[in-house]
Amino acid sequence: MRRIKLTLEYDGTGFHGWQAQAGTGLRTVQGVLEAALAQIPGAQPKAVAAGRTDTGVHALAMVCHYDTEDSVPLGNAAKALNSLLPSDVRALAAERVPDDFEARFDCCYRRYLYRLQLARADPHGAALNRLRALHLYQPLEVEAMRRAAPLFEGKRDFATLATQETRTTERQVFLCRLEARGGKLTLHVAADGFLRGMVRALVGTLLWVGEGKLEPDDIPALLTSRRRCQAGKNVAPHGLYFAEAGYTAWDGADFRHLR
Amino acid sequence: MRRIKLTLEYDGTGFHGWQAQAGTGLRTVQGVLEAALAQIPGAQPKAVAAGRTDTGVHALAMVCHYDTEDSVPLGNAAKALNSLLPSDVRALAAERVPDDFEARFDCCYRRYLYRLQLARADPHGAALNRLRALHLYQPLEVEAMRRAAPLFEGKRDFATLATQETRTTERQVFLCRLEARGGKLTLHVAADGFLRGMVRALVGTLLWVGEGKLEPDDIPALLTSRRRCQAGKNVAPHGLYFAEAGYTAWDGADFRHLR
Repeated sequence: MRRIKLTLEYDGTGFHGWQAQAGTGLRTVQGVLEAALAQIPGAQPKAVAAGRTDTGVHALAMVCHYDTEDSVPLGNAAKALNSLLPSDVRALAAERVPDDFEARFDCCYRRYLYRLQLARADPHGAALNRLRALHLYQPLEVEAMRRAAPLFEGKRDFATLATQETRTTERQVFLCRLEARGGKLTLHVAADGFLRGMVRALVGTLLWVGEGKLEPDDIPALLTSRRRCQAGKNVAPHGLYFAEAGYTAWDGADFRHLR
Repeated sequence: MRRIKLTLEYDGTGFHGWQAQAGTGLRTVQGVLEAALAQIPGAQPKAVAAGRTDTGVHALAMVCHYDTEDSVPLGNAAKALNSLLPSDVRALAAERVPDDFEARFDCCYRRYLYRLQLARADPHGAALNRLRALHLYQPLEVEAMRRAAPLFEGKRDFATLATQETRTTERQVFLCRLEARGGKLTLHVAADGFLRGMVRALVGTLLWVGEGKLEPDDIPALLTSRRRCQAGKNVAPHGLYFAEAGYTAWDGADFRHLR
């Protein structure tokens, strides 16, 4: 038995998220990946991912693991899988890992990007990137949004940003920075883990700051309130990308060098 | 009556090209645009474009004109149209032009981009950009391709690159340059006009150069042969973008500053 760590890119548009939903007939990334693995003699058709993405959310580099006794040389494993996968999911890399590697439980941090396009500053991409970034037509104070973003960093209770109740709502956000290049904004956010809907609520809250409904200084009290209604709406999924699963401690990467 | 010059971006994936095909039921850009114009009181539901794109070909900035007696202020014309258009076509700009302006006949040059992704150098985008660039998995001699591209410039007979017979096959190519940035290649090509399939055959021929099937020095004889079988295959439409329609003489723009 060999355990394989697989890095996947996918276009979330055609998927009801990562997680297989047996018996529903819904197309999921895990579902199509496990269907592909089932066609490789010796491979176990079970994939465990570092994180779960919702319907419409993309991945630049989702990590998962599976077990196999197939005879495919490791150098060809990604290519072999790609010949069995639909074109909106691609295996970027496959590497052998120790048998006790766990894509989910060993993950030290998850990193996401959220892409925004200020259509007033630059209308380009309105058609071609309509499912790759959130296009905004209102005026926004980007500088206020940029100042507000790091106020979400730190070890805190993030119940204010959670779509669902969960056992524990404390998370450690290592990075929360907004990068602005012309009309393109990218929020970079990394944490030990995320609550359901957390990144999308965080972006919705930053939009309230950009629209002047909140001041950056309001963020700390908003977080301590633990009331979902204090935060902005969950923004659309199509601007969100799962960008990285880290298996060593967060090293304080400079967000300007991330993709 | 006012004549409006409209600049459109579209995602060609869901369209059977620009040109309306009455009675076929095929979805075309002209078809959906004219259907939107028909909903604006006073607007004539007839649009004339600078160029015609084939099925699956995108536009960053297609130009067309239509006539109207509507009461929409010009500053809101693009927004009004966008409220009536499907999300894969967006009006980027609308401006009033003289009544005798002709988007097609007044056009001095058309400019296209073709985007290639060298998947060996950089596998990223294989899923998310699968319908935005041609992904290539074979080894390619990019430097030879870069040297070959300008050999297509000049006033010549381009019958070798034409998919269909036409009355005249002479065209003036003002620019044909390959830009390489890491694993991303962009061919910039501008001409007074293009023959059917010409850019895609040109890219297919450059790929033959990249694969070593042709030398850059073979290009002049290939063009004078006027035999389609001497040139490479038409590459896929999804890497091709109509980028610009120019209404002043070509000014020798530096391709490194184009988008």
